[in-house]
Amino acid sequence: MNEKKYPFVSNPRDSRFLTLRSLQTFHGRSRTGLYIIEGIRHVSRALEHAAPESIFLDPSVLSNRFGKRLAHRLHKDGVPGIRLSHQLYRDLTLASEPQGIGAVLRQNWTPLNALAPERNTLWIAAESVESPGNLGTIIRTAEAAGATGLFALGPDCDPYDPATIRATMGSLFSQKLIKCSPRDFSDWARSHKVAIVASSPAGLMDYKALRYRFPAALVIGSEKLGLSEQLLECADFVIRIPMKRGCDSINVAVATGVLLFEMASQRRGAHLNE
Amino acid sequence: MNEKKYPFVSNPRDSRFLTLRSLQTFHGRSRTGLYIIEGIRHVSRALEHAAPESIFLDPSVLSNRFGKRLAHRLHKDGVPGIRLSHQLYRDLTLASEPQGIGAVLRQNWTPLNALAPERNTLWIAAESVESPGNLGTIIRTAEAAGATGLFALGPDCDPYDPATIRATMGSLFSQKLIKCSPRDFSDWARSHKVAIVASSPAGLMDYKALRYRFPAALVIGSEKLGLSEQLLECADFVIRIPMKRGCDSINVAVATGVLLFEMASQRRGAHLNE
Repeated sequence: MNEKKYPFVSNPRDSRFLTLRSLQTFHGRSRTGLYIIEGIRHVSRALEHAAPESIFLDPSVLSNRFGKRLAHRLHKDGVPGIRLSHQLYRDLTLASEPQGIGAVLRQNWTPLNALAPERNTLWIAAESVESPGNLGTIIRTAEAAGATGLFALGPDCDPYDPATIRATMGSLFSQKLIKCSPRDFSDWARSHKVAIVASSPAGLMDYKALRYRFPAALVIGSEKLGLSEQLLECADFVIRIPMKRGCDSINVAVATGVLLFEMASQRRGAHLNE
Repeated sequence: MNEKKYPFVSNPRDSRFLTLRSLQTFHGRSRTGLYIIEGIRHVSRALEHAAPESIFLDPSVLSNRFGKRLAHRLHKDGVPGIRLSHQLYRDLTLASEPQGIGAVLRQNWTPLNALAPERNTLWIAAESVESPGNLGTIIRTAEAAGATGLFALGPDCDPYDPATIRATMGSLFSQKLIKCSPRDFSDWARSHKVAIVASSPAGLMDYKALRYRFPAALVIGSEKLGLSEQLLECADFVIRIPMKRGCDSINVAVATGVLLFEMASQRRGAHLNE
């Protein structure tokens, strides 16, 4: 296997390993503009969109034929990389069963001023999602429902967190990602006639009762605090999911899925029984 | 505080502690028919349904006034209990911020032959959900959507797993729980005219196109394997959630939420724009 030519690192103080490890932290990611992914599915889906900066392997684990071929191809394409000892590789991944191939990628943020929403597009804007796993599940759901991208409006909302990426199951790469303030987001939406739909238990409108117009952005708040006053005030519609008496909430990713698929179904006009 | 009269345990080999710890395992739970919960919300919601067998406290953490009052009330009601050292208490909970009060409860399974579905009821049947967190999120969603109960059809499907209970956010107690084989479940559904609605990527029918009839049971399969042939064959309807080309799946709890709220909304006739 050609990728055996990659240098082998087993010293935990090796600077190449330390650089990889720093990307697990928000600080390390924002300083470098990079992030890491792990696993065959993630690496191969990432490749559909961009070449990685570098890769890292655990040859003792990389037994899957598809994974080996992937490593081989990346080596042939001249992508730099290292082989890590099993222990060091384990330190870089949250997976219970690491797959022996990971990659470093450049973060890909779309600048707000380069963003013109096409007709009928659907967006997510997350003000603050406390659980990285929930944010990742939301991104996975957004892709499946045909959303175009995610606005990360608050500092807690980092799509490049390793736990978020893991939960996206490879969906991150297909979504446009935009980082901006709530104010810039609402200005953008106004100027491009994007309907802002906010979800809140305080909403007066059953989410089923609204005929959504597009383009639209669904705005979601944090698990504990919900949406800020600022975002509620700039919303064109505030909707709620009716729940059984006594229930005050469902999981934020489930709620987002319920709303997104309702919006997506109205948009594709597949609502056959209307 | 009267609950100071509860004996204090700090020895990790104390049999009272070992009994509590054994309830973290499937074996320990099935041998005793008991399970444990932790946190003020869980304990207070459990109390609405049944008195606990016993409680355990970490006085060094139980600072919240509502939690203290809860412990006081349980002590006054004659519920047995122990106080644990901080270290031992931590061993019993998955919470990142334990709240200092937990309880041992008796599992509450409804026998299949005692179960007659009322008009318009909605049920969940889970064949096998690999992630306990997903199962808990499904139970939380089921309660909010107004479902009556959960059929646990496979050995992997244990609503009393601590990680499941944690994700239910206290919703477990309001749901009827039934443990039976897929065969017994489908016989029960037939004989009580409960429509079996199976969710599968292989379903030929868009979930939005179906007018659901009630009572109904939504059957969901495992994250990786989906539903077994046996359950697909006994379904009255096999539906799917249409996804963007190239996407094969969403999180099982999100999918369940999308389907349950569609069913719930049809049932309550709040589908105002039809």
